[in-house]
Amino acid sequence: MIKKLSAEFFGTFWLVFGGCGSAVLAAGFPELGIGFVGVSIAFGLTVLTMAYAVGHISGGHFNPAVSLGLAFGGRFGWGELLPYWAAQVIGGFAAALILFLIASGVVPVEGAPAWSPGGFASNGYGDLSPGGYGMLAALLVEIVLTAAFLIIILGSTSARAPAGFAPIAIGLGLTLIHLVSIPVTNTSVNPARSTAVAVFAETGAVGQLWLFWVAPLIGAAIGALIWKALLSDEG
Amino acid sequence: MIKKLSAEFFGTFWLVFGGCGSAVLAAGFPELGIGFVGVSIAFGLTVLTMAYAVGHISGGHFNPAVSLGLAFGGRFGWGELLPYWAAQVIGGFAAALILFLIASGVVPVEGAPAWSPGGFASNGYGDLSPGGYGMLAALLVEIVLTAAFLIIILGSTSARAPAGFAPIAIGLGLTLIHLVSIPVTNTSVNPARSTAVAVFAETGAVGQLWLFWVAPLIGAAIGALIWKALLSDEG
Amino acid sequence: MIKKLSAEFFGTFWLVFGGCGSAVLAAGFPELGIGFVGVSIAFGLTVLTMAYAVGHISGGHFNPAVSLGLAFGGRFGWGELLPYWAAQVIGGFAAALILFLIASGVVPVEGAPAWSPGGFASNGYGDLSPGGYGMLAALLVEIVLTAAFLIIILGSTSARAPAGFAPIAIGLGLTLIHLVSIPVTNTSVNPARSTAVAVFAETGAVGQLWLFWVAPLIGAAIGALIWKALLSDEG
Amino acid sequence: MIKKLSAEFFGTFWLVFGGCGSAVLAAGFPELGIGFVGVSIAFGLTVLTMAYAVGHISGGHFNPAVSLGLAFGGRFGWGELLPYWAAQVIGGFAAALILFLIASGVVPVEGAPAWSPGGFASNGYGDLSPGGYGMLAALLVEIVLTAAFLIIILGSTSARAPAGFAPIAIGLGLTLIHLVSIPVTNTSVNPARSTAVAVFAETGAVGQLWLFWVAPLIGAAIGALIWKALLSDEG
Repeated sequence: MIKKLSAEFFGTFWLVFGGCGSAVLAAGFPELGIGFVGVSIAFGLTVLTMAYAVGHISGGHFNPAVSLGLAFGGRFGWGELLPYWAAQVIGGFAAALILFLIASGVVPVEGAPAWSPGGFASNGYGDLSPGGYGMLAALLVEIVLTAAFLIIILGSTSARAPAGFAPIAIGLGLTLIHLVSIPVTNTSVNPARSTAVAVFAETGAVGQLWLFWVAPLIGAAIGALIWKALLSDEG
Repeated sequence: MIKKLSAEFFGTFWLVFGGCGSAVLAAGFPELGIGFVGVSIAFGLTVLTMAYAVGHISGGHFNPAVSLGLAFGGRFGWGELLPYWAAQVIGGFAAALILFLIASGVVPVEGAPAWSPGGFASNGYGDLSPGGYGMLAALLVEIVLTAAFLIIILGSTSARAPAGFAPIAIGLGLTLIHLVSIPVTNTSVNPARSTAVAVFAETGAVGQLWLFWVAPLIGAAIGALIWKALLSDEG
Repeated sequence: MIKKLSAEFFGTFWLVFGGCGSAVLAAGFPELGIGFVGVSIAFGLTVLTMAYAVGHISGGHFNPAVSLGLAFGGRFGWGELLPYWAAQVIGGFAAALILFLIASGVVPVEGAPAWSPGGFASNGYGDLSPGGYGMLAALLVEIVLTAAFLIIILGSTSARAPAGFAPIAIGLGLTLIHLVSIPVTNTSVNPARSTAVAVFAETGAVGQLWLFWVAPLIGAAIGALIWKALLSDEG
Repeated sequence: MIKKLSAEFFGTFWLVFGGCGSAVLAAGFPELGIGFVGVSIAFGLTVLTMAYAVGHISGGHFNPAVSLGLAFGGRFGWGELLPYWAAQVIGGFAAALILFLIASGVVPVEGAPAWSPGGFASNGYGDLSPGGYGMLAALLVEIVLTAAFLIIILGSTSARAPAGFAPIAIGLGLTLIHLVSIPVTNTSVNPARSTAVAVFAETGAVGQLWLFWVAPLIGAAIGALIWKALLSDEG
């Protein structure tokens, strides 16, 4: 169990450090910055890489909503849910802390304003949505995308899917999810990722954190139920 | 059969929601937007992810032209063609509807014009072509690209190709197709995708919809016949 | 043999249509264009997709330099070299012809200049180099990159490499090659690709075509010899 | 042993030629340049391609920090460490030399300033950091990223991970690492890569080279120890 929780800790650490790190450090770099495409690729590759590295240890969830959906889908024991959630949230928070130290390490240039965290890659709606989308749009997009994410996870890891390819499907699925929804909510589908950076944001991100627990968890449950009721070919 | 149709419904839902969603929500975001490269990656990843997730259930067509081409190629029963088409069109439409709800969820800013769907990622030629290409160019590009798409599909899923890799080849093939042809027709090669969003467009996209049924279906038939006559090594 | 030559014809068709097509149609589209990154991805995906689709038929060369290098490497019969070269050159030319028809299909806008092919994605050095690189730089970069390409091909398809992954390594290797060298020569490493579009260019590309036969062929031979002498672990 | 060292030589050659080459030649090309996203993809693909090509010969390290970490992880003999380091540094230097010849091959345009190497894709902190990050931020980011890189390498090549996919996880892991940290240090995590280009830079990169040996080596050791102590499921 300790190895499983270590794997979830480091996997979620990597998801936040790599995904939010690319957003905080590189997305808006003048002229050469990576933009939403680069951030989308980065988030997806955090999951692709760690799913190959430690997926065989813990299952490679790195996301409380994924753990919940896998429990609903009958692939994960309910008794392990809370320890997994704890490891994920703590791992994400540790990454955000180190990222904060690095991001604030800009050498002060005379006359320029000091570095400030701003949104620190946090998720939000309304005033905190990158494109100004409201609460209902945010709820809807997070629910739909998390549901689809769970269908991808449950389907690509099912017994009849080609073996070994699931981390590619799941990781690049997360890239796709970001390509769609960064303008709406800055993309969560992962309560641990949202929580980790919200506490460092100077904005009101903490006050909106409830949505990024509620919507992904509901979406994950819906996705798992769709899989079991309408799709599963596991007999 | 119900599981097969569910798989085609959700797969085509995902293709339209992810592909057209990235175009509507994220392509033109100021400075950081994903552009044609991001939209191309998104469309390809919808197929890559769902082909791994539910391809083992329904074959993973998500596209009426693909279903037709596979029937011509002897890989799919003609009797299942119309139910598949129905599931694909309905799945795509459901995605476009939800996407419309999300995209219109921008919080109104005082003094700014209200959100309007515009082309809503629909396909078109002439005035509705992103780069101003005429009807003949549109017909030609859609036929050639759908034919090549079918050759990729039939070849990468043939018995002698390496097992398990077909979703990568097919999904990234769709990315490639978009990298070439978004400027010409906004890229269809998929009548269900074209139909789903045309009805939401404020432009005359519905009046041009015929081309995005005719050309992909002709192209798919040509691709399947080329495969059978000149390439197939299945004995 | 006819199936092998068909496979090489359609594979090289796809390489030129997809790779040069993305460059001609989409690279420079205002604001949303795919740039060098998109063109690099497109070229790589042409090979990745067709290597999975028809690689089991013909070996999936799609490139006279690759055929030569594989012959030097002992993996391909010298007697098939000229037929393969012919199928590749003709396939590439057919693609360039259709691409020309599509690209010229822009509906004339009153007062705007008519469409003109310009360089039509041809290769060049000196005045015809995108970044103004001279003949020696062009020779050097084409030789080095083709040699490395052959090492990737011979290595990833060798008996001890993991089975089935070679098209990923080879296709993405071609993406990488373009990411490096589009500014220098617009990237050839493939005489059939260079020949196909040179004849449509309005520039002096035909007069420089010799270099894009000589350098890739020399590079391929060097790569194959390095593989055999220093690397091959085939016993 | 000679084949192993050849493989490390050519693999590291390719890493520097492809990765630094894309940065020097293509990153900042006007309008169409590949930016940090393209450079990140290029670095990752150098490792993905050569790991498939020669990984079965030498293990595919191409990086002194990786060799050290694998030795700490019990996967590589300490007695081979110094020869591997030598092959890697020499291979990287050979690539930088050829890259210098190509990059300087711009045909002089009358009245324009002559080409100059500038930073030549070297790594740095403080004044030599692309985004102006200081020494502590540089140390921290290089240590964290190299540690994670080693966890990905040790995990994805462990006996219980799916066979054959490690080059994808490791290569795309390097892409991810660049997406995060180019703004901070121009991304090293590889002392051979840093050394190869530093000597050609016109800046003070050589004087900062110590950090790009110390931090990656410390990070690699930490990653290997984390793997062994907390994650390894090898019994």
